Amino acid sequence: MSLVVQKFGGTSVGDAERIRAVADHVARTHRAGHQVVVVVSAMGKTTDQLIRLADDVSSVQPRREIDMLLSSGERISMALLCMALADLGVEATSYTGSQAGIVTDTSHTRAKIQEIRGERLRATLESGGVPVVAGFQGVSEEREVTTLGRGGSDTTAVALAAALGADVCEIYTDVSGVFTSDPRLVPEAHKLARVSYDEMQEMAATGGRVLALRSVEFARNHAVPLHVRSSFTWEPGTWVDKEDPTMEQAVVTAVTLDLSEAKVTVTGVPDRPGLAARLFRGLADRNVNVDMIVQNTSLHGTTDISFTIPEADLDASTEVCTGLLDELGATGVTSDDDVARVSLVGAGMKTHPGVTALTFETLASDGINIEMISTSSIRISCLIRAAQAEDAVRALHAAFELG
Amino acid sequence: MSLVVQKFGGTSVGDAERIRAVADHVARTHRAGHQVVVVVSAMGKTTDQLIRLADDVSSVQPRREIDMLLSSGERISMALLCMALADLGVEATSYTGSQAGIVTDTSHTRAKIQEIRGERLRATLESGGVPVVAGFQGVSEEREVTTLGRGGSDTTAVALAAALGADVCEIYTDVSGVFTSDPRLVPEAHKLARVSYDEMQEMAATGGRVLALRSVEFARNHAVPLHVRSSFTWEPGTWVDKEDPTMEQAVVTAVTLDLSEAKVTVTGVPDRPGLAARLFRGLADRNVNVDMIVQNTSLHGTTDISFTIPEADLDASTEVCTGLLDELGATGVTSDDDVARVSLVGAGMKTHPGVTALTFETLASDGINIEMISTSSIRISCLIRAAQAEDAVRALHAAFELG
Repeated sequence: MSLVVQKFGGTSVGDAERIRAVADHVARTHRAGHQVVVVVSAMGKTTDQLIRLADDVSSVQPRREIDMLLSSGERISMALLCMALADLGVEATSYTGSQAGIVTDTSHTRAKIQEIRGERLRATLESGGVPVVAGFQGVSEEREVTTLGRGGSDTTAVALAAALGADVCEIYTDVSGVFTSDPRLVPEAHKLARVSYDEMQEMAATGGRVLALRSVEFARNHAVPLHVRSSFTWEPGTWVDKEDPTMEQAVVTAVTLDLSEAKVTVTGVPDRPGLAARLFRGLADRNVNVDMIVQNTSLHGTTDISFTIPEADLDASTEVCTGLLDELGATGVTSDDDVARVSLVGAGMKTHPGVTALTFETLASDGINIEMISTSSIRISCLIRAAQAEDAVRALHAAFELG
Repeated sequence: MSLVVQKFGGTSVGDAERIRAVADHVARTHRAGHQVVVVVSAMGKTTDQLIRLADDVSSVQPRREIDMLLSSGERISMALLCMALADLGVEATSYTGSQAGIVTDTSHTRAKIQEIRGERLRATLESGGVPVVAGFQGVSEEREVTTLGRGGSDTTAVALAAALGADVCEIYTDVSGVFTSDPRLVPEAHKLARVSYDEMQEMAATGGRVLALRSVEFARNHAVPLHVRSSFTWEPGTWVDKEDPTMEQAVVTAVTLDLSEAKVTVTGVPDRPGLAARLFRGLADRNVNVDMIVQNTSLHGTTDISFTIPEADLDASTEVCTGLLDELGATGVTSDDDVARVSLVGAGMKTHPGVTALTFETLASDGINIEMISTSSIRISCLIRAAQAEDAVRALHAAFELG
């Protein structure tokens, strides 16, 4: 007998029929003798609809009230799933974030889990029942309802798996696993049987949409094995686990694409120490997450500083830069959201030189100009024109023989 | 400065525009120097939609999960109302039943309020804020989410008004007050400026739909003055308060109509003590609420027992009666849901004989046959054919000069 956490995303519980299919799967797992804890997201587009409704009502939206609003979605899906399980003879009990003992800090709309008080869930498991827990939400020490932000339901599932000592955390979604690249762009892309936490983190950080970065980090920190699979086909998906040192690593595991970044350049910055620090402190103070940074040296005593940020932060970023122009003694600010970041991820990269060279050769032979480069020990990212992004992904997927 | 509880029903917060109108009204009350506690229902048809969704998912619906499901509706409306209030510069904070300290028993889907722990609401009021509380829901001592059943939001409002010592509980709805009769049936019906708790209770019990019976009972028991008014016109409505002994009472205050009852007759019951008791114990054990009862005496040593019940309980009732036929030695069971109950309510009835006579004369002159009669000190109810119901209401409204 093992303890399994099964998390179902919004499309997996998108309508009455899907909810019944999920109940059937949970019931089978339960009947096979496993203990099951279920985590659900809100149904389909519920969260988007609630956000639209809020926008219709008011432009002033206290974050505490956004959390109260959005946390209603999972209550609906989890209660319905419990009813569907009852119909199959499985005793299931729904728990809000608060009832499940998911204690967070007080940062509304992006709360962090601080502690899991799992007594009620453990009691339900011990009595042979199936706890169905609301993903994405928790309760602060001040008894306020909080939500965890993007990817919150995955994080709930992983955190519960860690707290309860689950054998596996199964993440059910609308794709059948983690692929070598987005199959809509690269028809030859294939499903990976296994990736390491490190690789999955790099993929999540560079445009892989299957898992949210913070849930992968959480899984790695607590050594929770993840199994990403489809609630439509129910076939085995991709395991995300510790790196296996006895196995040879693929040099390149996947090619990812991120079109959501924008580039900002501050021109004519005097070449003096401390100015770059001033600029990035200003951005950090506005909560802008800077990703790639390139500083060109110059012959004239000035330099251009370019960096990428999420498109959503573009306005805030140009505001910060423009406001600092005088203080920096810089000449101007330009921005460009017509860029794409193409990345290669692979644990074997560490021990295989030549990946960078082949990457550059491949892009060059397709006439694709690289505007910025950043690397980690298991990743190479290139910023290119958005219009050339799909060609670049296909060319690299082929060059590294991932098909 | 007074403390006002304002309760807004589903149609009052039916869409974004209505929510903004409610916020405007609450903000005006607050700016006029009053302390305001707001209670909201779920938006428009939300509850019905959730029930339909549950029916699509499963025929087995544990009542605990129904409560979890339905309690999501008020979270949405109250969070949106707080946003709309924030837009108007009013600091408002939403509270779930649990957060508002509304402690109930554990009877899911029809919980009873046992205690109100109002500290959080009082603290919000003292800091100058407006607490917005979810109607219809509470939390049991076992930390389970409960709902209060039909008319639950009115009950929440009245209970909060009693616990906080409010000066008035304003019930906003889609009609402008309590009328002498349903204006859709009787165009001459007019709005009453004031009715007593007793009259309002009799009206609520006999088909008046403006207030739920239990909320009126609660208001009476705790002497909470109610003000029933429209959130569409905002004009003064009807006050429901203690009887004023210094004022002469109207003989008849209102004519009500209830089409939701059905009649069951058990024929040929031997005329022996204890048999009627056995029958009504059987019905009580199935939670059937029996209303009117008539037992005809007979010359042949047997009797027919007729009673009315809510139409929804008709199947259960005939089942109970049929099951008891042998034990009772009765000959048969008939049922009839084509009946209507017309009632006259008036506090002055106690001291004015002749109301019954005029009632019977009025119906007789219109050729309307009375099948059953029941009375209280301030009410007369007649069971008649459903097809004659509207004529009966109009005739009585005219005969007692309520127009």
